[in-house]
Amino acid sequence: MTGFRVVGSVTRAHAGFLELAELTVVGPDGEFTRSVVRHPGAVVVVPLVDEDVILVRQYRAAVGRSLLELPAGKRDVAGEAPAATATRELEEEIGRRPGRLTKLCEFYNSPGFTDEYTHLYCATDLTRAVTPRGVSVEERAMSIEQLPLAATADLIATGELIDAKSIIGLMLTQQLLERGRAGQT
Amino acid sequence: MTGFRVVGSVTRAHAGFLELAELTVVGPDGEFTRSVVRHPGAVVVVPLVDEDVILVRQYRAAVGRSLLELPAGKRDVAGEAPAATATRELEEEIGRRPGRLTKLCEFYNSPGFTDEYTHLYCATDLTRAVTPRGVSVEERAMSIEQLPLAATADLIATGELIDAKSIIGLMLTQQLLERGRAGQT
Repeated sequence: MTGFRVVGSVTRAHAGFLELAELTVVGPDGEFTRSVVRHPGAVVVVPLVDEDVILVRQYRAAVGRSLLELPAGKRDVAGEAPAATATRELEEEIGRRPGRLTKLCEFYNSPGFTDEYTHLYCATDLTRAVTPRGVSVEERAMSIEQLPLAATADLIATGELIDAKSIIGLMLTQQLLERGRAGQT
Repeated sequence: MTGFRVVGSVTRAHAGFLELAELTVVGPDGEFTRSVVRHPGAVVVVPLVDEDVILVRQYRAAVGRSLLELPAGKRDVAGEAPAATATRELEEEIGRRPGRLTKLCEFYNSPGFTDEYTHLYCATDLTRAVTPRGVSVEERAMSIEQLPLAATADLIATGELIDAKSIIGLMLTQQLLERGRAGQT
């Protein structure tokens, strides 16, 4: 399943942290083009306090509404390692510093059109660091919600929680904790 | 957590099925702008054959490599209901027609910058319909892989399967089947 190769890239537009580009690809039938969006990448964190998880409810202009999500952020500081971005975002959004940060997985958010790549962590041994200050206007207006991790499966099933990165983070964490419990018995 | 409202939208660029737009939003501190990508939305399907799932391995220009994914497609046919798109994509990509299509959930793929919204289905009672023909050059070159659904958790843990929509579909299906089995005992 090789046989494809990007041989050219033309920037169509820049806007904020996004770049719309047209790629020229050589495939088995010759050259073709694909429009793609370049993205700096992101981190997302599952902050655990005992059996609870801390979520944020934040306005998202792209979808014109507020969404319940895990704390997350773009990798928009040059040279910053993903774990450092995760720690920074956690302080900015919920005012907690993680004693321990465990990598859960990495994924492409929507590889049909964008290279956005996300690093997912679980954060435990949280200490109160600072009052969350929020960098953007959306962050300054966000609300913080602490609820049992076990309750999030229902939020996903009922469509109350419909953010892909948060669904992955919550389901993976739930699965790991269940396996941990099963391993202890 | 209301208090935000989109009051303007300017198209910066169109490319293929994507539109890069700059939104003007009124928030609690006044007006601000956000760059967003408009996307037609998508469907993704978990095709089950007994205890197996059928995946596809497909070149993705946006990330410059082939990825292991669930069959999926854009909602790019005007007026087509998501379930119809799911049925069509399944025939195009793996040559099977679903006897039963069950909605699992819906989600925003990356609401920080795009309105892409995905409908996730589980497909069972599959019949061989046609030879998969593939509409795009990537689809014509894709390979089809059938493997035990239970094996996909390891593929996610090891980073062999790193496509967000596929991770959600496989984990949700696994969870539903485990609950079904637990309910039967």
